[in-house]
Amino acid sequence: MSSDDPISLEGFILELADASGAAIMPYFRTALDVGDKRSRGAFDPVTEGDKAGERAIRALIDDRFPNHGILGEEYGFKPGTSPISWVIDPIDGTRVFMSGLPTWGTLIGAMQDGVPAVGLMDQPYTGERFIGGPSGAFLIGRTGRTPMQTRPCAGLDDAVMGATDPRMFAKGGEADAFRTLADRVKLLRYGGDCYNYAMVAMGQMDLVVEAGNQAYDILPLVPVIEAAGGSVTDWQGRPLRAGDAFTQSGGRMIASGDRRIHDQALETLSQA
Amino acid sequence: MSSDDPISLEGFILELADASGAAIMPYFRTALDVGDKRSRGAFDPVTEGDKAGERAIRALIDDRFPNHGILGEEYGFKPGTSPISWVIDPIDGTRVFMSGLPTWGTLIGAMQDGVPAVGLMDQPYTGERFIGGPSGAFLIGRTGRTPMQTRPCAGLDDAVMGATDPRMFAKGGEADAFRTLADRVKLLRYGGDCYNYAMVAMGQMDLVVEAGNQAYDILPLVPVIEAAGGSVTDWQGRPLRAGDAFTQSGGRMIASGDRRIHDQALETLSQA
Repeated sequence: MSSDDPISLEGFILELADASGAAIMPYFRTALDVGDKRSRGAFDPVTEGDKAGERAIRALIDDRFPNHGILGEEYGFKPGTSPISWVIDPIDGTRVFMSGLPTWGTLIGAMQDGVPAVGLMDQPYTGERFIGGPSGAFLIGRTGRTPMQTRPCAGLDDAVMGATDPRMFAKGGEADAFRTLADRVKLLRYGGDCYNYAMVAMGQMDLVVEAGNQAYDILPLVPVIEAAGGSVTDWQGRPLRAGDAFTQSGGRMIASGDRRIHDQALETLSQA
Repeated sequence: MSSDDPISLEGFILELADASGAAIMPYFRTALDVGDKRSRGAFDPVTEGDKAGERAIRALIDDRFPNHGILGEEYGFKPGTSPISWVIDPIDGTRVFMSGLPTWGTLIGAMQDGVPAVGLMDQPYTGERFIGGPSGAFLIGRTGRTPMQTRPCAGLDDAVMGATDPRMFAKGGEADAFRTLADRVKLLRYGGDCYNYAMVAMGQMDLVVEAGNQAYDILPLVPVIEAAGGSVTDWQGRPLRAGDAFTQSGGRMIASGDRRIHDQALETLSQA
């Protein structure tokens, strides 16, 4: 198989997650045995973990596929000459990581000509990997590999929705549209970050709505949700692509397990 | 040792968690393979899991200590004749459980004459138990037993704070006081439920502020935080006790790892 064939990357992406998990975990739940503010400020575990994780991933890609482009949260964009390029967020859920909770994730995605093709969220503390690509969508956990499928949900009044933080929506149209939608769903839960998207793929949640996202926050999750039967678009209903096409989205995302509630939600969100 | 000696209950409480975890886990991430709303509504995994967990805990207590009182979320209050009584929330973090995230918990606490004496939060999916009592505070995880200690934090501007949901604060004085406090801390994260309190005990977070709590939401966590060096009070600075004394709190709680920021936060919250 060619290195530009996404199916050949499904094994490699697991190696990348092995490397990032090993690099990041020493920084998770690190005890800061210092009392004064100055000393605490001098060492920032989440930034150090972010950088260590991204370095580990970039080193493996550079070694195996030196012609692939890479966009990462910490070390920016490295152009490539292959149709394949990588998008990386070593620690998605910075606040969660800083608070010691196990619902942050490492996001790694391979784009083919800018289209999300293979993606993964790795949670090294719980030992969970949510992966999606040409072979399907799977949770690889401590007890093995389980196919993932989104669940049906016909109407918003039956939907379980997640959003990381109400403060992510800009005051005015964006916040208003979110509130209107929130009033229509069965249940809204705050918190979750990338973990929410994985739960849509698993058929545990129906909808995630967010704003202010960067490309690396969401592009690696697109294949996970789509391969499980779900949809991810911006608030105008456009699919998400790498590069200039991403900036059109304004960082506003909606992910759903059932296209019916996706379309119902877009009616409200597209007004923003 | 007498059955009314809290130290003798530290082993028993782990048996209770074994039983509740086994009863609840079959309902976690249950696939609902039904498309229509009526069928989905007919089976509510979180309610079923809640009931199964509480039945398992009550059966063990009734068998071993029939004279102990029990207060549980699902099956109410059973008076006892011993100075020891139990407070149980089989699934704290209902929305989290319903969404498939691993940050809900089973809360089990033993009160001695109404004073929280031994307590535990069990997370059976991650395999974490946060326990506190006369012997100290410990995380019992997959890799063994680790002492827990809160971390120092001298000022609110250095504090990492958690609150489950901004909607839990009643409009008016309660919500205003929370917002004033939120503006003074370094970082506020929404979500987390009982897991936030465990992270204060572990020295990963500095402050948790909530409202609308029931006795079973918080009393089992008091020994965990206190044995780790932290403080739990209501918004007037009063300690938390079972029974009528609890209702004085109005369900408003503050937990902290360092008494200095506890007192700073109370200055704001006690105005509500």
